[in-house]
Amino acid sequence: MSTILRKHIERITPLTDSEFDYVLAHFSPRSFKKQQYLIQEGELVQNDFFVLSGLVKSYYTNADGKEHLMQFGMEDWWITDYQAYFNQQHAQLNIDCIENTQVLCLSLHNREKLCAELHKMEHFFRKKSNAGYVALQRRILSLLNNNAQERYESLLKLYPELFQRVPKTLIASYLGVSRETLSRFSSKADLK
Amino acid sequence: MSTILRKHIERITPLTDSEFDYVLAHFSPRSFKKQQYLIQEGELVQNDFFVLSGLVKSYYTNADGKEHLMQFGMEDWWITDYQAYFNQQHAQLNIDCIENTQVLCLSLHNREKLCAELHKMEHFFRKKSNAGYVALQRRILSLLNNNAQERYESLLKLYPELFQRVPKTLIASYLGVSRETLSRFSSKADLK
Repeated sequence: MSTILRKHIERITPLTDSEFDYVLAHFSPRSFKKQQYLIQEGELVQNDFFVLSGLVKSYYTNADGKEHLMQFGMEDWWITDYQAYFNQQHAQLNIDCIENTQVLCLSLHNREKLCAELHKMEHFFRKKSNAGYVALQRRILSLLNNNAQERYESLLKLYPELFQRVPKTLIASYLGVSRETLSRFSSKADLK
Repeated sequence: MSTILRKHIERITPLTDSEFDYVLAHFSPRSFKKQQYLIQEGELVQNDFFVLSGLVKSYYTNADGKEHLMQFGMEDWWITDYQAYFNQQHAQLNIDCIENTQVLCLSLHNREKLCAELHKMEHFFRKKSNAGYVALQRRILSLLNNNAQERYESLLKLYPELFQRVPKTLIASYLGVSRETLSRFSSKADLK
């Protein structure tokens, strides 16, 4: 399974075998069953998670109990509550499993250690962070512009796989629309 | 003026005099007058901008001509259209000046060169990118949660200076509310 991580890192920076072994030794594997939590709101966030298999979602629950979906995470994606992780604070988000999920956990201490020791890894994480920033900028633009149909189409284009694996109610929550509105988009898309 | 940049970098990583001189040589200074553009939609985005003085805004104009404010930038802040900058694409955003503005420009080529040559600078830019990611995550949560009063209060707390310098119509646009709604929040806040 660790070859998934190696391929993932080497899309940005090549590593020797011994470098990769060293990097990998800073991660710890964990398995979660469907509906289990990787992070619960209020907990101290110890880890960033690299998903090896399965599917998770991160979401915020507001004072009225309404859930707002922040992000999905599947094979080859990173996910955590980054605000809490980078600042070593208590989670505002929940992350739970839509499917049985295997992850590699990376503590902030180990991330910083790897970045300090290996310039290559500092480079890797800077590139990942830049890409993450750009994805969030895109999400904000689509939320501000507030055209749910466009949000639906761009999600479908970026992550067609999600639509096979994620219940429609969650897709609707991610897009910030009702389940009924989503159905209208789906049937329009089917006609194309 | 370059001491602003040095202080800014040294909040994350100390530099020797010669290191800083070397870094600074990769930036080029530019001045813009009020209402001039740093970036116009459709242009190739060459630079990231570190603001030395003044105040700018980045925004997206949708098909109906409605402007959605993405970000403000003032002294000690970085601003560009990051999606276009990192991918060397054409700008989706506009960035223009609310006040006369002086910036230091950093091309993507020079940014990558500095990061490759100086591990310290790779570290600096990774940390800035992480902080930027967290700020955008916070913004998305507030947009999803869609409580404009809370968005107003958190902006006021984070950037009290903005409220002295930025026209109320722009604050309203940033929050995604009407000018009238903003006035209600302002008068409530004054009563506290």
